[in-house]
Amino acid sequence: MQIGIIGLGKMGFNLALNLQRNGYDVVAQDVNTDFVTKIGQEGITTAHSVKELCQKLNNRKVIWLMVPAGEIVDGVITSLLPFLEKNDIIIDGGNSNYKDSKRRYSQLKELGIDFLDCGTSGGTSGALNGACTMIGGEPAVFEYVAHVFKDISVENGHLYTGAAGSGHFTKMVHNGIEYGMMQSIAEGFEVFEHSEFDIDFEKTAKLFNHGSVVRSWLMELTENAFSKDPKLDSIKGIMHSSGEGKWTLETALDLGVPTPVIALSIMMRYRSQMQDTFSGKVVAALRNEFGGHAVEKNE
Amino acid sequence: MQIGIIGLGKMGFNLALNLQRNGYDVVAQDVNTDFVTKIGQEGITTAHSVKELCQKLNNRKVIWLMVPAGEIVDGVITSLLPFLEKNDIIIDGGNSNYKDSKRRYSQLKELGIDFLDCGTSGGTSGALNGACTMIGGEPAVFEYVAHVFKDISVENGHLYTGAAGSGHFTKMVHNGIEYGMMQSIAEGFEVFEHSEFDIDFEKTAKLFNHGSVVRSWLMELTENAFSKDPKLDSIKGIMHSSGEGKWTLETALDLGVPTPVIALSIMMRYRSQMQDTFSGKVVAALRNEFGGHAVEKNE
Repeated sequence: MQIGIIGLGKMGFNLALNLQRNGYDVVAQDVNTDFVTKIGQEGITTAHSVKELCQKLNNRKVIWLMVPAGEIVDGVITSLLPFLEKNDIIIDGGNSNYKDSKRRYSQLKELGIDFLDCGTSGGTSGALNGACTMIGGEPAVFEYVAHVFKDISVENGHLYTGAAGSGHFTKMVHNGIEYGMMQSIAEGFEVFEHSEFDIDFEKTAKLFNHGSVVRSWLMELTENAFSKDPKLDSIKGIMHSSGEGKWTLETALDLGVPTPVIALSIMMRYRSQMQDTFSGKVVAALRNEFGGHAVEKNE
Repeated sequence: MQIGIIGLGKMGFNLALNLQRNGYDVVAQDVNTDFVTKIGQEGITTAHSVKELCQKLNNRKVIWLMVPAGEIVDGVITSLLPFLEKNDIIIDGGNSNYKDSKRRYSQLKELGIDFLDCGTSGGTSGALNGACTMIGGEPAVFEYVAHVFKDISVENGHLYTGAAGSGHFTKMVHNGIEYGMMQSIAEGFEVFEHSEFDIDFEKTAKLFNHGSVVRSWLMELTENAFSKDPKLDSIKGIMHSSGEGKWTLETALDLGVPTPVIALSIMMRYRSQMQDTFSGKVVAALRNEFGGHAVEKNE
């Protein structure tokens, strides 16, 4: 089976290799020509435009998008439309907002184009060696390409989640859970770091992965990180994020559902991005106002 | 090697069987005579008092306590003292507060009795089939019984964590991490539960355990729970706790370390134990006072 891939970043590049290894005839395209050259060196058919990509694909075309979430997805879909025919399938494998995926499904449905939203977890190594995929859309469209998801995922690592949007919704919540789990692990090691004991972080993380209740892939990654840098001296504690945690919280707020741990995980990320906070100044100023408590002056 | 075990609840009972299977000559005692009879039926030597237990142990005695944390531990230690000789070893394998363990170490040290604090993770199945143990105390004392911890734990599942108290300290923080991870998983499924999609919780938890970033033993337990009760209709969402999470938070407060996720995990447990809250009444009353907003009346 032929599959077109648009977007050859860390995830898309590895996914293309994963598909190739599983016997698919991959046609790959990216706006970055370096990526296109590099994937070509892996023996994968390349295209230098979406038009060329579509010309190299037989019908019923299956095109997997692995591009950054947001307007870029809409832009790529719009650029594809002139070259698509009825029942061609677009799979959005990126981290799109599920509301966008619902909209795109409806818009494409009117044009007769099929659309699946596929949340993809497992990181870049998963994209290469076996991902975890959760797919929303029409059942019959899913069935047509179900073997693709099965082949690129680990055993039992793909799931049809239901109506359009549900794949990205499931992935969004997965990421919200991930935020909370990471923050919880991190807070535990913060306590270790400040404790009276001389805790060996790498050995402790390794121990926690052998028989404890908190054993997990994230704890294995924690162990890996400490094995390379025992106190993480080489990096700053600035935590960026790419949106899914925020969407999970926004969804929880819309649904009126309490998710304090996920909420605080996100707030701690924002706090980490600030060297100082205005709220800190306000509280310090107020303590000074009512109680004459000392403030620390800016130099 | 002989080992005395005091406390034959879920953890102690399974630990005794684990030790027996590993070739240790176990002498077991509990204040509950039913437990003593039951473990006797497993071919384990029993004692009906701590005196009898000590009489059945050769020197250098090794006595493992697996009793509820708090005053019971002090009570059992006090009751043992008349029958102990210098350099006998007491191992506290329960969930004691690390500050108590530090105190007990010092008090016993003055009497010439050796003491190790051993945090034990992995639940009752771990106690039976291979636990995760973290041990604090004097290095030479640890070395004397290191093979015991190695034998009852999974491979790479035991660690000498350092000075007295550090074993229970490490276990305490482990449990704090556990609280946050559990709450985060739970909040994710709360969002699923209220969502517009028809998410199959068991299938989704199973998917998350195959290749996703959040794969973990806790997610496997989540999958197990949903496999038995797809919507958990048979149970209430009341979350009890046994202290270690609270101690982690107390320690973080003493150290001046921010741990919002662990803190909120504990607060959500407390909230779950209340049918209604007084704070809820206060906020409802205030909204009524300043804005005339409707309140819901008690019948």
